[in-house]
Amino acid sequence: MNSMSETATLASWIVSNRIETVPEDVRHEARRAIVNYLGCALGGSHDEAVDIAIRTFGPYSGKPTGSILGRAERLDPLHASLMNGISSHVYDFDDTTPKNYMHPTSPVASALFAYASVHSVSGRDFMQAFITGFEAEMRIGNAVYPAHYDVGWHITGTAGIFGAAAAIGKLLGLSRHQMVWAIGLAATQAAGIREMFGSMAKSFHAGRAAQNGYSAALLAQVGFTAGEHGLEGPRGFAAVQAAAYDLSKITAGLDVVYELRANTYKPFPCGIVNHPTIDGAIQIHREHHPAPESIAAVRLHVAPLVLDLCNQTNITRGLQGKFSVYHGAAIGLVRGKAGIQEYSDEAVNDWAIKRVRERATAVGDGSITEDQAHIEVELTNGKRLTRFVERSLGNVHRPLTDRQLDEKFLDQAVLALPLEQVGRVLKQCWEIDQLADVNHLIHSALPLADARGSEKRDRG
Amino acid sequence: MNSMSETATLASWIVSNRIETVPEDVRHEARRAIVNYLGCALGGSHDEAVDIAIRTFGPYSGKPTGSILGRAERLDPLHASLMNGISSHVYDFDDTTPKNYMHPTSPVASALFAYASVHSVSGRDFMQAFITGFEAEMRIGNAVYPAHYDVGWHITGTAGIFGAAAAIGKLLGLSRHQMVWAIGLAATQAAGIREMFGSMAKSFHAGRAAQNGYSAALLAQVGFTAGEHGLEGPRGFAAVQAAAYDLSKITAGLDVVYELRANTYKPFPCGIVNHPTIDGAIQIHREHHPAPESIAAVRLHVAPLVLDLCNQTNITRGLQGKFSVYHGAAIGLVRGKAGIQEYSDEAVNDWAIKRVRERATAVGDGSITEDQAHIEVELTNGKRLTRFVERSLGNVHRPLTDRQLDEKFLDQAVLALPLEQVGRVLKQCWEIDQLADVNHLIHSALPLADARGSEKRDRG
Repeated sequence: MNSMSETATLASWIVSNRIETVPEDVRHEARRAIVNYLGCALGGSHDEAVDIAIRTFGPYSGKPTGSILGRAERLDPLHASLMNGISSHVYDFDDTTPKNYMHPTSPVASALFAYASVHSVSGRDFMQAFITGFEAEMRIGNAVYPAHYDVGWHITGTAGIFGAAAAIGKLLGLSRHQMVWAIGLAATQAAGIREMFGSMAKSFHAGRAAQNGYSAALLAQVGFTAGEHGLEGPRGFAAVQAAAYDLSKITAGLDVVYELRANTYKPFPCGIVNHPTIDGAIQIHREHHPAPESIAAVRLHVAPLVLDLCNQTNITRGLQGKFSVYHGAAIGLVRGKAGIQEYSDEAVNDWAIKRVRERATAVGDGSITEDQAHIEVELTNGKRLTRFVERSLGNVHRPLTDRQLDEKFLDQAVLALPLEQVGRVLKQCWEIDQLADVNHLIHSALPLADARGSEKRDRG
Repeated sequence: MNSMSETATLASWIVSNRIETVPEDVRHEARRAIVNYLGCALGGSHDEAVDIAIRTFGPYSGKPTGSILGRAERLDPLHASLMNGISSHVYDFDDTTPKNYMHPTSPVASALFAYASVHSVSGRDFMQAFITGFEAEMRIGNAVYPAHYDVGWHITGTAGIFGAAAAIGKLLGLSRHQMVWAIGLAATQAAGIREMFGSMAKSFHAGRAAQNGYSAALLAQVGFTAGEHGLEGPRGFAAVQAAAYDLSKITAGLDVVYELRANTYKPFPCGIVNHPTIDGAIQIHREHHPAPESIAAVRLHVAPLVLDLCNQTNITRGLQGKFSVYHGAAIGLVRGKAGIQEYSDEAVNDWAIKRVRERATAVGDGSITEDQAHIEVELTNGKRLTRFVERSLGNVHRPLTDRQLDEKFLDQAVLALPLEQVGRVLKQCWEIDQLADVNHLIHSALPLADARGSEKRDRG
């Protein structure tokens, strides 16, 4: 093995890096990513895609020792990691790195939570493995972006598998040589194409990345060999999956540059182009609380792209709401929030939301960036409320605060867990580093009946 | 769904084609492919790669109802299909289509045998599904070849997954719409890179193609949705995995042109460039039976590429023998055959083979094609035996006869099964179309203890 190859250098870093050398701001960002992830996993855990996947793979699962976040069913940990991946990505509400369009946490954390549900893993080791996997996959993603993404790869699947392999490999204590094989086995399973966007297969990519990356580490541990130049070889991942790439991005600045600092969290579960409008509408709601029946007209000035993508007006289903900037304005003004529940069929047909939505119009304006929006609300008494959003919430320059992440978490977690459980999960999640065993957090993130069973087992 | 799309057209054909319209010569070629496959699967079933994979995935397998060809262990059928895929490809001795370099039978038959080990499948339905899968994957492979292969994809993995999805989808009786999803779910899992050649990961590609194609069909059956233009979409399989492609090859001549007719079977388990030399040496052995100690010199005239690839002389291990044209000549002359056992450590160190090998020399000759070889054996009494091979055995123009496939089968099957069982398996395999339940054949292809157990269950 050429010790100077990118694969070998990255493998060395993966097996030897220590969380103690990671700056506190990065560690805090890792906590934020986990809080955001867990909320998304809980929020999506009862989506039909997860139901079908559990039904399909249940008969092919090993002993049901592994927990699926938010679900009472158990599967073996590899299958549990697949389900966690689907849950956490199915609403497209998980984190994003604008640098390469990855949803980086889902593949890594989905594998880690599944693994930690069957092994005793301390919070320290969990976070060390998470940061390792996150940084590894992001570096690989950066190396092949944009050519890789542009041709049609779903980078969350293709680069994500390396993150899962690195994270699980770290917990397994792989040697450098084994980690080289794990990278190779990840490289040769990297898959997922953007043609699947708009179908259940999209969230399946994140799940398979978790599951197959996890498998790659397991295989490498027992000596299943792979090519040793999985990343940089002439027929390796970069050469095969990208017309142009820069391998130096894989290894430059390891232990110094942390990609976690470039992570962002969506405030609203819809296309990012609607975010400035929703953001502004919520601000108007919070400041003025206009009654829905007092709103005579809503006039939006938005980037022209918004009307290309999100111009749906006559809508009756929740999913359509995601493609309607008018619905975005309406929920912001009426409810002062735009969570999963504001994109339900119920919300789309809510009389007040419908009333405001139908009074909204939009003009595409080339002078407005995709990160901006201008909103004018005319009330029946003739008064006008206006707001210009300069930089949309959730943008890397205007990140969600920890408290906003709490709100996002709670909004999703209640879809899977009784309210009394939700606060406990959130608290444990922020304190994950200090847990002696991450299973305490995982138990809290299962429906009560199952969590009680687990606690009983713990005591017994 | 656009009914004119390649995905939809192929899906329609997959779900509606009937074996009764397949010409008898094609059906016979399908039988030959299965005989060749089963021999390879048995021959490779105890390779270390299979041992490790069973050990690794055993704890993650569902109920052990599925049989692994040649092995006593059982796993769930998805995992069994993975193991069959590794076994049948691990010695690179399975079939090849020179048109696109696929090893086409392994992904399809590995899934089918695993499926048929847990469901009652008639020989007719099995062969119908096999031909369907074979033709589907070959057409997709042809559409993206050569750009796809040249950039570094291992086409057996990437196109093979479609074959497994089509074959299992056919047995499951998927609707056209479900088959479109299955194709999408195959497209988005298509993986395997040539950088892995020379490691266990290569045979893993065939196994994952079988397993993931099988999964794609299972998911589609219960309504797990996928993009409906998995093949031809702007971010579909062809566009993402090939710089140039011709989609018309997917659908042209369905039910008329059968790619099975272009299939070939390797007579010898080594690089194809050695085949003409081995072929000629075996001919000399059969005609003259020269005693090893009577051979004074062996002079080879071969295509120059042979010496680039297979010039190893001072060899001590079986694997090295595959890269030595001298060893190829020696085993042909001494043993009159070149099966798996002629590439063992034992054979490489056999005194007679070693003696002849060390008396062999080769000259690269630009007038000799890669399909030809000239061999001259000088005996100690001064007599010369010569042979010119014009077209190597196994070539599409000089295919192995059914009897030669028998020999190849027996040579490999004895590595996994007691001799008394081997003849029965082979007979059943040639008569597979007529079996009421393919499980009868599968039981015969398991080590005796397990086969007996299965028979007992059948009787009980």
